[in-house]
Amino acid sequence: MLASGFVLAIHGGAGVLPRDDMSPEREAAYHAALGRVLAAGQSVLTADGAALDAVTAAVMALEDEPLFNAGRGAVFTRDGRHEMDAAIMDGRGRRAGAVAGIAGVRNPVLLARAVMERTDHVLMAGTGALQIARAAGLAFEDDAYFYTQERWDSLQETLRMEADGTLDDDPSRRHGTVGAVALDRAGNLAAATSTGGMTGKRAGRIGDSPIIGAGTFADDTTCAVSATGDGEAFIRLLVAHEIDARIRLGAQPMSEAARAVVIDDLSAIGGSGGLISLARDGALVMPFNCEGMYRGCVRDGGAPETHIY
Amino acid sequence: MLASGFVLAIHGGAGVLPRDDMSPEREAAYHAALGRVLAAGQSVLTADGAALDAVTAAVMALEDEPLFNAGRGAVFTRDGRHEMDAAIMDGRGRRAGAVAGIAGVRNPVLLARAVMERTDHVLMAGTGALQIARAAGLAFEDDAYFYTQERWDSLQETLRMEADGTLDDDPSRRHGTVGAVALDRAGNLAAATSTGGMTGKRAGRIGDSPIIGAGTFADDTTCAVSATGDGEAFIRLLVAHEIDARIRLGAQPMSEAARAVVIDDLSAIGGSGGLISLARDGALVMPFNCEGMYRGCVRDGGAPETHIY
Repeated sequence: MLASGFVLAIHGGAGVLPRDDMSPEREAAYHAALGRVLAAGQSVLTADGAALDAVTAAVMALEDEPLFNAGRGAVFTRDGRHEMDAAIMDGRGRRAGAVAGIAGVRNPVLLARAVMERTDHVLMAGTGALQIARAAGLAFEDDAYFYTQERWDSLQETLRMEADGTLDDDPSRRHGTVGAVALDRAGNLAAATSTGGMTGKRAGRIGDSPIIGAGTFADDTTCAVSATGDGEAFIRLLVAHEIDARIRLGAQPMSEAARAVVIDDLSAIGGSGGLISLARDGALVMPFNCEGMYRGCVRDGGAPETHIY
Repeated sequence: MLASGFVLAIHGGAGVLPRDDMSPEREAAYHAALGRVLAAGQSVLTADGAALDAVTAAVMALEDEPLFNAGRGAVFTRDGRHEMDAAIMDGRGRRAGAVAGIAGVRNPVLLARAVMERTDHVLMAGTGALQIARAAGLAFEDDAYFYTQERWDSLQETLRMEADGTLDDDPSRRHGTVGAVALDRAGNLAAATSTGGMTGKRAGRIGDSPIIGAGTFADDTTCAVSATGDGEAFIRLLVAHEIDARIRLGAQPMSEAARAVVIDDLSAIGGSGGLISLARDGALVMPFNCEGMYRGCVRDGGAPETHIY
């Protein structure tokens, strides 16, 4: 058992409501939801559970929470459908699983994990991925389960703004993603990410969340990372693997590497977003270059913290 | 204009026929096909064309050639269908485009390029990607165009061996992919990769070819890479981005970095395959850790070379 004990961090996306649109009630609801998610992951880690199981539990809780853009509460594509992506990675030996463009599975992170544990593949898309979900006995839900009035209204507004030529770059339409990273008492790292993508996205678009090394990465020798933001920029920079590489090859401290990638490199190519990054020694940073990021963390024996801006 | 002039390298996959199965006639046919592909890319570069256009031309020629597993001649999935993946990356500013799980488009690399040039996205899958192909006016072909007797027989043999429990790990069933990297006279790099995947693969499986940083990568400041082999291993190692990172962060010469990733790291996790990697100074290596890799290269003012083992 490491002296540092466990660490768990979560995010509910960099697509926060602008401060002016955030009522005290709504802000309290977000903090409460983040607190419930932390508790779900923490209960695994306090029982000496594995980081892999803790990030699975935390991301399932984020997916089940309609406030966040993943699972229930996922945004709509421009066709009025859901296309969800998820990934999970085990820092022990870089095992990984991911799914892209799926609908109907209650918890996409469980399907990513089934791809990792039940197949020789890393990334599976569409109906082929759904066959694995059925074989694994995962829970499916109907359209009504995934429908939220707020996301539907957001799609209609986005389509109207596109038609009017008044579409702005409000991150609350672009950045919704959830994720978790954990270090367990045995010293192992894991990361998981899940998303409904961008409101009004084209059918078939795959962002950074299910791309190992872009939006999700974990290696016990370096760090665990889950990202949220402009997916295309995160893919071009291989953000999560870049942090790993800077620690491993550039001898940079994780916190310096993670901040440089988000604050310098991402900004330099016009990308916006953030990430949570946890080092093998328990160091944790949650940098973002936009207005806010729903986030929280808890350490072994400590009190949970949640933040938005 | 750089003194080094242009460099073009291509591969037709690490899934070469075992030496014992290769007749002199067949070997000559492979060399001739590789020569035609090099000529297609070379004609762009000798006319002072861009590396991006040269890798596009070379990969189109590889896709049109039924001997290689991409475009015409793509292998069959276990459902007897085609699902093709492709990616392209421009070393100037890391622009990239990729497609996964598409069928019917004559040249998947052109669709990857259309994603890069006509959308804000990097990776598009399935029917959403096909909408872009239609909007871009790309050529479609029917099933008969993509059908080759040899690939069909290979699927039947694979399914029979699976049923018998006698499936071996013959790389000729697993490693088919094509790709090209180029440095143009203006000093810009580009990379492109295209594949039909693995014979008998599950529907929906996405390998490393369309994953930026895994099977395909280009950055003018470091290198251009196209890989072929066990896709899942290449994804977990982020092979192409790892070579870039070792040059950029670890101050390793490109040739040393590329060889270490393939010969040491890939072998260490039980992965097999190879890649072509071209540095900004014109250095080129084509390492593989299996029996062979269909490959070739040509330099400004030089004679083309092609190799198999």
